[in-house]
Amino acid sequence: MNLLLFSRSELGSDGLLSVDDGRLQHLLEVHGKEVGDTVRIGEINGRMGHGKVLSINTEVAVLEPTLDQLPPAKLPLILVLALPRPKMLRRILRAVAEFGVAELHLINSLRVEKSFWQTPVLDPDTIREYLLQGLEQSRDTVLPPVSCHRRFKPFVEDLLPDLVRGRQSLLAHPGNYPPCPRSTDSGTLLVVGPEGGFIPYEVAKLEAAGCKTVSLGPRILRVENAVTSLLGRLL
Amino acid sequence: MNLLLFSRSELGSDGLLSVDDGRLQHLLEVHGKEVGDTVRIGEINGRMGHGKVLSINTEVAVLEPTLDQLPPAKLPLILVLALPRPKMLRRILRAVAEFGVAELHLINSLRVEKSFWQTPVLDPDTIREYLLQGLEQSRDTVLPPVSCHRRFKPFVEDLLPDLVRGRQSLLAHPGNYPPCPRSTDSGTLLVVGPEGGFIPYEVAKLEAAGCKTVSLGPRILRVENAVTSLLGRLL
Repeated sequence: MNLLLFSRSELGSDGLLSVDDGRLQHLLEVHGKEVGDTVRIGEINGRMGHGKVLSINTEVAVLEPTLDQLPPAKLPLILVLALPRPKMLRRILRAVAEFGVAELHLINSLRVEKSFWQTPVLDPDTIREYLLQGLEQSRDTVLPPVSCHRRFKPFVEDLLPDLVRGRQSLLAHPGNYPPCPRSTDSGTLLVVGPEGGFIPYEVAKLEAAGCKTVSLGPRILRVENAVTSLLGRLL
Repeated sequence: MNLLLFSRSELGSDGLLSVDDGRLQHLLEVHGKEVGDTVRIGEINGRMGHGKVLSINTEVAVLEPTLDQLPPAKLPLILVLALPRPKMLRRILRAVAEFGVAELHLINSLRVEKSFWQTPVLDPDTIREYLLQGLEQSRDTVLPPVSCHRRFKPFVEDLLPDLVRGRQSLLAHPGNYPPCPRSTDSGTLLVVGPEGGFIPYEVAKLEAAGCKTVSLGPRILRVENAVTSLLGRLL
């Protein structure tokens, strides 16, 4: 926890922040904070700064917040991802928030197992929890929007063209395609397929919507490694 | 399992390969292979090709190997990594093999918890198992060498200068440094520190050995995400 995140509703009428959950445990056990110490804090979707520890014991810590910094800018990157298996989805949600991806769209594909759409990880509260873990890691406060699109065709035909407009739009796909570019000055939209890849019909639809198909090289990477290495390459 | 890996010692005197472990289960349950089908196979540290299924049942599968392909080239990249916590180490071992990193050196640092050196993950058989998982993913057969250096100073003073020679050598470190370059024509040596970063003494020693300190941007990434995004950026 590189940043203690809190919601505005957690502030008392005196403007003080009381924490009594896992964050308290972390302050005590990992950071060994005492009265008078300061802690990096951030209001979810708001400003960051520090909290001065006014009191702390095993029951509750009371912090006096000073919120004088803006959160870091998001990357100018929209990620469109075929819904991965739940275990990988958790890691990708954390990484999306950690890297500062601006938006995540989870889409369907023939090779997305239907059961993946039933995972409790897609519960909005659970998505939020994993995103918060990523924000805590990289010291950001702003939750990126995550949308689910359970039907491929309406997404690529009706929504994708608007997302593509004005952006370098790339579909990372295995095969003999030009290599993925190494940087991006303007905004980017990046599409990553399921394990096994999009089927040819889906590739054609994504290309028709304005995406350029690029290759990541001869190796088949796990989806999470493909995503993080593409982010490092593009940004 | 995108590639079924086997050891030379598993071949019978008739040159046939019998599998009766998790690989058999995978052939049956995930790939649904039957007699006459072919399977992508590779000899560990040897050639790749395909195996024709001569017989298969719930006890054993017998494959006739044709090994007519070289494994993919490794990346010209040596990774030097402060030993991460065991959970992350497992994922990094897989990723190192998956991306085709040429060599991995695990080193000590003041911020590496001493207990990390006791993890069973560092058992050579366990390291091998995680590396094999990465090779199976990206269809490679060659196990990258992994060395452990439990003392920082002898490593940076006695071994590192030889590794650095003739290579672009980069230390990815948080702070106000030039950004990490975006590609590498020659060989690269990449050093990544522990959670919390190398201490100033360690940074100075690494720089004295010939490493150039570079930044990954303002966000603090988890070690595994830092490594995979650096690989995507450099390669």
